[in-house]
This record gives sequence, structure tokens and C-alpha cells, in this order.
Amino acid sequence: MIVHAYAAPSATEPLVPTTVERRPVGPADVLIAIRYAGICHSDIHTVRGEWGPITYPQVVGHEIVGEVVEVGAEVTKHAVGDRVGVGCMVNSCRECENCRAGMENYCLKGNTGTYASVDRDGTITQGGYATHVVVDQDFVLRVPEAIPYEAAAPLLCAGITTYSPLAHWQAGPGKKVAVVGMGGLGHMAVKIAAAMGADVTVLSQSLSKEADGRRFGAGAYYATSDPATFETLANSFDLIINTVSAPIDLRSYFGLLRLHGTFVSVGAPPEPLPVQVFSLFNNRRSFAGSSIGSIGETQEMLDFCAERGIAPEVEVIAASQINDAYERVLRSDVRYRFVIDTATLGA
Amino acid sequence: MIVHAYAAPSATEPLVPTTVERRPVGPADVLIAIRYAGICHSDIHTVRGEWGPITYPQVVGHEIVGEVVEVGAEVTKHAVGDRVGVGCMVNSCRECENCRAGMENYCLKGNTGTYASVDRDGTITQGGYATHVVVDQDFVLRVPEAIPYEAAAPLLCAGITTYSPLAHWQAGPGKKVAVVGMGGLGHMAVKIAAAMGADVTVLSQSLSKEADGRRFGAGAYYATSDPATFETLANSFDLIINTVSAPIDLRSYFGLLRLHGTFVSVGAPPEPLPVQVFSLFNNRRSFAGSSIGSIGETQEMLDFCAERGIAPEVEVIAASQINDAYERVLRSDVRYRFVIDTATLGA
Repeated sequence: MIVHAYAAPSATEPLVPTTVERRPVGPADVLIAIRYAGICHSDIHTVRGEWGPITYPQVVGHEIVGEVVEVGAEVTKHAVGDRVGVGCMVNSCRECENCRAGMENYCLKGNTGTYASVDRDGTITQGGYATHVVVDQDFVLRVPEAIPYEAAAPLLCAGITTYSPLAHWQAGPGKKVAVVGMGGLGHMAVKIAAAMGADVTVLSQSLSKEADGRRFGAGAYYATSDPATFETLANSFDLIINTVSAPIDLRSYFGLLRLHGTFVSVGAPPEPLPVQVFSLFNNRRSFAGSSIGSIGETQEMLDFCAERGIAPEVEVIAASQINDAYERVLRSDVRYRFVIDTATLGA
Repeated sequence: MIVHAYAAPSATEPLVPTTVERRPVGPADVLIAIRYAGICHSDIHTVRGEWGPITYPQVVGHEIVGEVVEVGAEVTKHAVGDRVGVGCMVNSCRECENCRAGMENYCLKGNTGTYASVDRDGTITQGGYATHVVVDQDFVLRVPEAIPYEAAAPLLCAGITTYSPLAHWQAGPGKKVAVVGMGGLGHMAVKIAAAMGADVTVLSQSLSKEADGRRFGAGAYYATSDPATFETLANSFDLIINTVSAPIDLRSYFGLLRLHGTFVSVGAPPEPLPVQVFSLFNNRRSFAGSSIGSIGETQEMLDFCAERGIAPEVEVIAASQINDAYERVLRSDVRYRFVIDTATLGA
């Protein structure tokens, strides 16, 4: 099956319209007619080769929502007409300790990414900037009716990446949570943490998005460009979710953690950051990483967002605007996530 | 009250016999006739000014055990004749969030160290290489009869520093725990973790202390000088207690943690260490610090050690051997803790 798509021809050229072949629908597969695909900063890093060399042409996109249009003979989890989503992974080894524990996102053999990954048939996976995709039923999520298609897309990466650590470290009533960065991930972290009942503070470079942050549920908003912020908020937080990938002065942020507090990075710079180990001794602080979430957690997050009426703020664009959107993402000029209307892909 | 002691006259000279003045026994104070004082690597860092400038002469020692010989009018917790101990702190603010939570070791104003700290009367605290010490009853521990005096001393620092993170991160049956380093702290970490029921592995530079490690309760022993160790043990441990203060390649050690595992440093080099943040993403790993333990935990640890028959391995020395002992500590030539017999101090 040949479908319309948008692909990067090389690390240095703009994305262009093209077609891509999808595998025949296997017994456990679901064919999805994609409605919307979100644009994640990871897409840009990947197509530009910033996370290592890849094979071109490459279609990216791992925030995918659409409708089931065909299912394999053995498919039991989804049916034609279902509203579904696909996130950052489309398979895993299913045998390792972590897969058996239902934590496929931490598959010890490495899960199969939705794009730029080697699939089980040896081909390179091609992502969601396309009209259709074929995915194993176990890696397809149900998208509740309460969430509009276009708003559901960013939940599959930005949503789960922030929900998973918030749930794991038990953000909730009585917990003070800070969110560093107010971009695609940060704005979802604020909404989810607030819905969980936590007392949420945003730590952003400036106060330019303060009104939004408070509307999303933050009770406080501080500029990290102001050194007084780090004195005012010293020893305050049980949990800090860092959505900023650029290098930051970790020691200053660790100083904001109260007793047994944890600073969790969900983004990271490629270069190592210096850590003053003593700065973790006070208050018995922890520094952790977290990577997306399991399929089970992703479903739980979608159901949670539907129930609480939470959705990302999106700007819907046509396929022809993808390259401009990339430039705007790099300038942080987006409130808060671009979503491609895939109806414009074949146009 | 003037008592015999051993003090450092400067950062560069050997310790010498001297006398030191102890404050009068206040209403809440306990006067302790010291029997033994352990030698901790921190003592050496401190007297040599390696952790910052200090005032001389300075008496160090924060692994103190002895007998109560006088109590203030309001003392209710201890009585004359009691076997008692004093660890790394002799006071705290008692008002901050952490003190109120019974975690004086994380006092937000900084607890008062047993030596080289500013006491509430403005004097500099003088440590346990002395025949007597006066300490507020709230910072004095009960030493159970089952633990010989000389073996009890190192529990007050080496014991609690390793017990506290092992208890906090729930070392126990079904948990795989690694201990990095087999010195004063490491050997206690092995004994305590094994007594808690955990499956214990030692990671030491060489295999020279393997027989001891197994005798202390380790089920496995690996040399960190062998790169194969890091492949063999990849994704294995729930908890790693790092007792090594020298810089290590953190990324290699993080790789040994299984899902949701934690690497805890209880020692740290003064210089920052590079951390590849991505290396914390796999298995959702945490990197934490831990600093001694609270008074409550210290009492719990002493009672635990008495009940389980656990004690440090000590080499008792006379005061005249302190300077030689320091050199041996620096060469790691001690199995596993030097303890000064304070009866030799006035000799």
C-alpha cells in the first residue's frame, strides 16, 4: 500500500511531499487512517541527524491519531471505526524483564521507535506525517470520544512523557510540583499535575507565558532568569519535572528540592552536565530520568485526560507549513503544539 | 573542665596530645567518659583543611562511645552508668521543617557537627579524640549491651551512613543491592544489607578482599577494574550504595541499575562529576545522595545491629598511633576501621 507522506530527503534539506509504502495488514495489525500528527522537537533532532545518522528519506511523527479502517484476522483490541492513537513506539521484544512487567518503554533490547527504527522485518519504520500507518494492535491506544482528534495527538508523546513521571512520583494533593519550561511538554505537565491535585509552580525563563500557566492550573509562576527565584523557592518542591533539553545549572535546581525531593529530566542535552554530588546530600535529593511511558500508562493517561477534560493547546497546520513550523518550534514560537491536518498531505 | 585530647595544631602538622575545655554540664546535658573513638576519613579531610579552612587547634572524632558520668537536672533520657554514643552531630535548629520531621541530619539551617562546627555558645565544637565530652541529651544514643564498646564506635558514622539509605530505599528480601567500595563504610553496608535480607554484591577495585566480603554476607564479588563486570551485571541492581569518595565513571555504574533502580552516593569528591542525563532515562534510573541519618534512625540502627549480632571489624590503637593510622587510612590499609582506646590519651 502506497500512501501520501511528508519526508526529509536529507539532514540539511526541507521536508517534501512524497509517498511511502506500508506493509500489508498482518494478522495482529491495525490499519489506521491518520487524521492528525503532532510535531515534536524530537522529529527535528532526528531528521537533522542531531541524534545520530539516519537513513533518508525519513518520515517522522510519533503523535498519531486517526480511525481504524482495517484489522487483521487475529485483532481483538480494536475494530474498524475506532478512534485510535499511536505514540513513540510500535513494538518491543516482549520477552525481557521490563516488557514482561508491562514497561515496554524500557525494553532492555530497545523498543521499536515509530520512526527511524529497525522494524522486525528489517525495514526502517516511517512515522506519522502520512495518511495511513499499519501498527501491531498491542501498540495502538484507544482515544476516548471526549478528546477531539487534533487535541489527542500531542498526548501520545508530550502527554505521556509528563504523565508517567508525575504518576510514578505520585504528584497529588499535598505535593508541591515544579515544572521547568512551558513548551509542548511543559504546558501538559502543568495541566496534568494540577488535575492530579498537586500544588503546581512553573519555572520559565521569563514571565511571558504567566497568564497561560495560571490558566492551565499553576498556582505560582517564576522566572528562572531572576536569581532571586532560586533563593525564594529553596527547599520547596517534592518533585520537579524538567522539560528543558538545553543544558541548565543543575545545582541551582537541586537546591529547590525539599526533603526526599526528586528532580526528573524528561529531556536532555547530548553533552554531559556537571553534577556536584554534595548538592544531592542535603535533603537526600534524587536526580532521575524518565522516558515516555508504557502502553498501559498511555491508555491510563488518555482516559485520565478525557475524564478531567484536559487537552493540549494546539495550532493546526497544513502539510505545506511543516518546514515553517519547524523554524517556529526552534524559536519557541508556538502555543503550544503544532498538529498537522493529514487531509492536506495528498493535496 | 579540662580534659585530655589529641588535636591538630595546623593543616600540615601531625596531631599532638593536648587538653581541651568542656562546657559545664547544663540542665539538658550529659557528661560522657569516652572509652573509644573511631577514625573516619572525614576526620583527615577536616584537619587537613581539604573541606575548607578551619580554626586550630582542632580535636576531631565523631564515632564516640562511653559511659555517662554526670547528667543535668532536666535529663530524662540517660542516666549515670549508661552505655552511650555520639555520632556526627550534637545539635540542630529543632525548628525547621526537617527537624520537626525528626530528620535533624537534614536540618535546613545546618546541624551542629560534633567537631569544627559553631556551637550555640559561639565556640567551635571539639570532637571525640578526648577523654570526655558534654552533649545535649537529645543527641546522645543508647548503646545496647550486646555491642562491645570498641565495635560500637564506628556504627555512629560508618554504620548509620550506610544503614539510613539501605532502610530508606528498602533493601530487603527480593532486592538486589550492590555496595561500591569495601572500606570502613562499605564493609558495614555489606553486613547491614545482608542482615536486612537483600541479595548483596560487592563492587571493589580488586578481588583482594573477596573472602572478607563473602564472610560479611555478600553473595557475589566483582572487580571494577575488569570492564567485563559492567557487561555481566548490566541492568541488575535495585540499589547501589556508593561509598567511594574518589571520582568514578557514573555512566558505567548507572548501567548496572535495573528498572526504577537508584544509585546512592554517601561519599563525594569535591569536584563536579559529568553526568550523561540520557543514561538515567533507561530503566528510569535515579541518582541520589544521602547524609548520615537522623537520631531516630541511628538508635534504630544500633538496636538492629545488636539484635542481628552485627558489628564493624575494628583495629584498636593507642592515641600515639593516630598519625600512623591516618597514613594507613589514606593507603586503604585498614580492615576495616581504626578505633582509638581513649584510656591511652592521658598517658
